[in-house]
Amino acid sequence: MSIVRVHNFSVSLDGFGTGEGQSLDAPFGHAGHRHMEWFFETRTFRAMQGKTDGSMGVDDAYASMWGPGIGAEIMGRNKFAASRGPWESVGMDDEWRGWWGDNPPFHTPVFVLTHHPRPSIKMDGGTTFHFIDASPAEALAAAREAAAGGDVRIGGGVATVREFLAADLIDHMHVVVTPIVLGRGERLWDGLEDLDSRFTIEAVSSPRGVTHLTFARR
Amino acid sequence: MSIVRVHNFSVSLDGFGTGEGQSLDAPFGHAGHRHMEWFFETRTFRAMQGKTDGSMGVDDAYASMWGPGIGAEIMGRNKFAASRGPWESVGMDDEWRGWWGDNPPFHTPVFVLTHHPRPSIKMDGGTTFHFIDASPAEALAAAREAAAGGDVRIGGGVATVREFLAADLIDHMHVVVTPIVLGRGERLWDGLEDLDSRFTIEAVSSPRGVTHLTFARR
Repeated sequence: MSIVRVHNFSVSLDGFGTGEGQSLDAPFGHAGHRHMEWFFETRTFRAMQGKTDGSMGVDDAYASMWGPGIGAEIMGRNKFAASRGPWESVGMDDEWRGWWGDNPPFHTPVFVLTHHPRPSIKMDGGTTFHFIDASPAEALAAAREAAAGGDVRIGGGVATVREFLAADLIDHMHVVVTPIVLGRGERLWDGLEDLDSRFTIEAVSSPRGVTHLTFARR
Repeated sequence: MSIVRVHNFSVSLDGFGTGEGQSLDAPFGHAGHRHMEWFFETRTFRAMQGKTDGSMGVDDAYASMWGPGIGAEIMGRNKFAASRGPWESVGMDDEWRGWWGDNPPFHTPVFVLTHHPRPSIKMDGGTTFHFIDASPAEALAAAREAAAGGDVRIGGGVATVREFLAADLIDHMHVVVTPIVLGRGERLWDGLEDLDSRFTIEAVSSPRGVTHLTFARR
């Protein structure tokens, strides 16, 4: 049975998954990458950069789970482009193909949720970006079909994960609580009162200072 | 050197230290005691109830640190009485002596912050409640003097801890993140952007599912 998963989703102590003032130059706004630093040090992340170094402790154990078994990803427009509105209005009608270069690390179909559909973009290495205007349930149906029996990853950003949680479509979620207080931005937990009643939650803190939470649907 | 400490301060994943709708019958509002359950199971808490059972694992190791070395406590009016306004207006001018019976677990002077000072109340076992209308710095000066070389504990509630953090008066803080999503109430972290820059933060999760964070002033 194919399941729906979230991985390596980092939040601050105060629950922000991104800071304020996002842009192409600052995809997480004023947060910089402070809540992602634990990830950047892992072998899993370094491998995405074509490197072979990186940590292999508990942080990497969790980080490495993001890939195996996944047949498709769903992401919000903001994760793909840090912009809103018609593509041509933000100068992204031709060139912009995401942050990840010619060979993105997904290697599966990726469904980008947007109110402004555009033709699909086929990249090297098996990644194809599809742009769809769809509800979470509709997007999931499309991704499930494309995944051909594999699991579907909800890749973020914050609003996308929150919408899938609100629609009760997530089966497994890995959230990383990092010891910083961002103060402002987008909160993961908003509107999700009693979310814990739907999941068994395990907490494991790492020597690096972050805490890995895994949510398993009950 | 006497330091200022916070212990066993429980928050939900979304950062709430108490729920909405606090009253004498529901001191934490709609939260009930869900964020405190880890504490209720410890030997430290059970001893406060005159019992000799309770867990002695990592949760109790942290819980037990609240007492030794403390010479005085400061708490908000809300922790003492879950009420606001003049004491007589809420029927608390005579009888109300806190939640803790004749022999409260503090055994030191306790300074209750209130805009409505009243005569001190001497309890059994060394606890005396003093009621003062004071800024955090003024209250700390009074508590330090009363503590006679001991440390000062900031006992809560949420607004009181937040005010002392904002005034940079806390040296050591133990926060317990519990895996529940309360959705509404009072947030500990509000207004404390970049708090982490002032502290070294350690995270230790327990088999019980909570995460103990200790903040040590840099």
